[in-house]
Amino acid sequence: MSSEFDLIRRHFSRAVRHTDLGVGDDAALLRTRPGMQLVVSTDMLVSGTHFLPDAEAQALGWKTAAVNISDMAAMAAEPRWITLALSLPSANDKWVEDFADGFAACCMCFGVDWIGGDTTRGPLNLCATVFGEVPQGHAVLRSGAKAGDDIWISGAPGLAALGLQHLLGEIVVDEAWREACLLALHRPQPRVALGLALRGVATAMLDVSDGLLGDLGHILEQSNCGALIEDALLPLAPVLVASGDGALARQALLNGGDDYELLFCAASAQRDALRDLSEQLQLPLTRIGAITEQSNVIFLLAQDGTTEAVRPQGYDHFRGGL
Amino acid sequence: MSSEFDLIRRHFSRAVRHTDLGVGDDAALLRTRPGMQLVVSTDMLVSGTHFLPDAEAQALGWKTAAVNISDMAAMAAEPRWITLALSLPSANDKWVEDFADGFAACCMCFGVDWIGGDTTRGPLNLCATVFGEVPQGHAVLRSGAKAGDDIWISGAPGLAALGLQHLLGEIVVDEAWREACLLALHRPQPRVALGLALRGVATAMLDVSDGLLGDLGHILEQSNCGALIEDALLPLAPVLVASGDGALARQALLNGGDDYELLFCAASAQRDALRDLSEQLQLPLTRIGAITEQSNVIFLLAQDGTTEAVRPQGYDHFRGGL
Repeated sequence: MSSEFDLIRRHFSRAVRHTDLGVGDDAALLRTRPGMQLVVSTDMLVSGTHFLPDAEAQALGWKTAAVNISDMAAMAAEPRWITLALSLPSANDKWVEDFADGFAACCMCFGVDWIGGDTTRGPLNLCATVFGEVPQGHAVLRSGAKAGDDIWISGAPGLAALGLQHLLGEIVVDEAWREACLLALHRPQPRVALGLALRGVATAMLDVSDGLLGDLGHILEQSNCGALIEDALLPLAPVLVASGDGALARQALLNGGDDYELLFCAASAQRDALRDLSEQLQLPLTRIGAITEQSNVIFLLAQDGTTEAVRPQGYDHFRGGL
Repeated sequence: MSSEFDLIRRHFSRAVRHTDLGVGDDAALLRTRPGMQLVVSTDMLVSGTHFLPDAEAQALGWKTAAVNISDMAAMAAEPRWITLALSLPSANDKWVEDFADGFAACCMCFGVDWIGGDTTRGPLNLCATVFGEVPQGHAVLRSGAKAGDDIWISGAPGLAALGLQHLLGEIVVDEAWREACLLALHRPQPRVALGLALRGVATAMLDVSDGLLGDLGHILEQSNCGALIEDALLPLAPVLVASGDGALARQALLNGGDDYELLFCAASAQRDALRDLSEQLQLPLTRIGAITEQSNVIFLLAQDGTTEAVRPQGYDHFRGGL
């Protein structure tokens, strides 16, 4: 069994590119660029709550970095630095190496320096804290949505939820789509380029981690407004093909989390610009509805013209299971 | 049972004083002052490894903040901001309130804004990330010790170790000293004022969390030097009175961690200045030895003139118990 200090030295000391002092002292040292605000977020992942106990180490490393970096994308910030604290039941060298490789790979992909952390013994728990930069006053918050704004979602949300249900044996995803669903679940892609491009365009934004409707509720609450979502606009095609079941697909799309797509609002004058951006980034951007005046309520407009009011409810780690 | 969002709203949203945006969005926003480096450290505390499972919630909250803030002191940095991620077996409202109060109290005492975090369900785990500022190039690292430097320790190290042994039923600390030992264990005082005063004075520094000799080893390794510690100089009196046992006292002093005192090196020309500083801060500062040329070895000089070589070995969370 390796010692804690050996583990850190061997796997956690990676080269840094824009950091004054990385792993090895009581703290790391870094400098933000002039005119920039520092953007800080922390996310903790727990076995059985955020991932299955038998999750593959490298994928878990990727995901731990990705869900944190996604919070930078959601603020229209450039991710720059990250720390990782983890508690492990035992010091399994191979597991730690794989996990560290996955974590470092995701950091590399998004230009993030891994600057420090902490390792200790205990039930498996992964806690990263990520730091980004945004020109002062240019972060996109949850609180800026206005009645009349369009509501947009990136990518093909719902695939990760189908992947999880497949792993849990609740459904069987067709082989042709299985890989895509498992990739969405295990290797989520933080939408950093999209987040940066939405500075000055999006009026409110967040990343969907707990379900599209629930997370939309956070925007409505903080912007003090409501939303009308049109069934006919929803990007149902990918989840429908993957699941082969309309009700299931709709459920995965509206309530599944874990895809880490960006949900954002923008004035309707931005529609053309957003279609261009979608092409440029090769990433679907779908307008799914509009912001309304009435506070804290989401109306779902069905294709037959009827509406249903939904109370926004985010995924609650003290209520839901995985 | 409260929901996650209720819990956050009720207990984790505290007023901030030097932060642009605190709890409630995807990330917090802050600005470092011109000419300052940002100093970043993260520490994870796990039940059974860092504290007893029945630890009192308010004390645990204090300690979670304190051990992190102590890392800022150890860098000669001014602590400014902190995030807290925690996983809890259940959403016990009273426990969370007490814990949050203890955490917030420590932050208040040291001028730290609590700017965000994450709560989730899982085995009890507390992970804070702290941010400080230091004028560029003025951080005191572990790597600056030079042969001939004096070695100093603050306070009365060893009391926390006695407090823990008392709680574990391994020893009985005399009633007159019990409170002091338990306070050292449960309410460690990060030596922030001392750390700041040592800018430009200390050549190397860290906070003792894993044992005086073990942590001294980190300085020796990074400064590529050795140390001679004189038994006759050690601040044994407090631990000796508290434990009533010479061998036990020496053990608690040299190998006990958890007091979060500062261990630092300074040129001998600084002795008078350090004695003045000790009076000014009303905090004992004890010169316990000197840095030597020979790499990575600590010699203990006994009062009879004999020396004993000790291999520095830090507390290892994968080897030791509590």
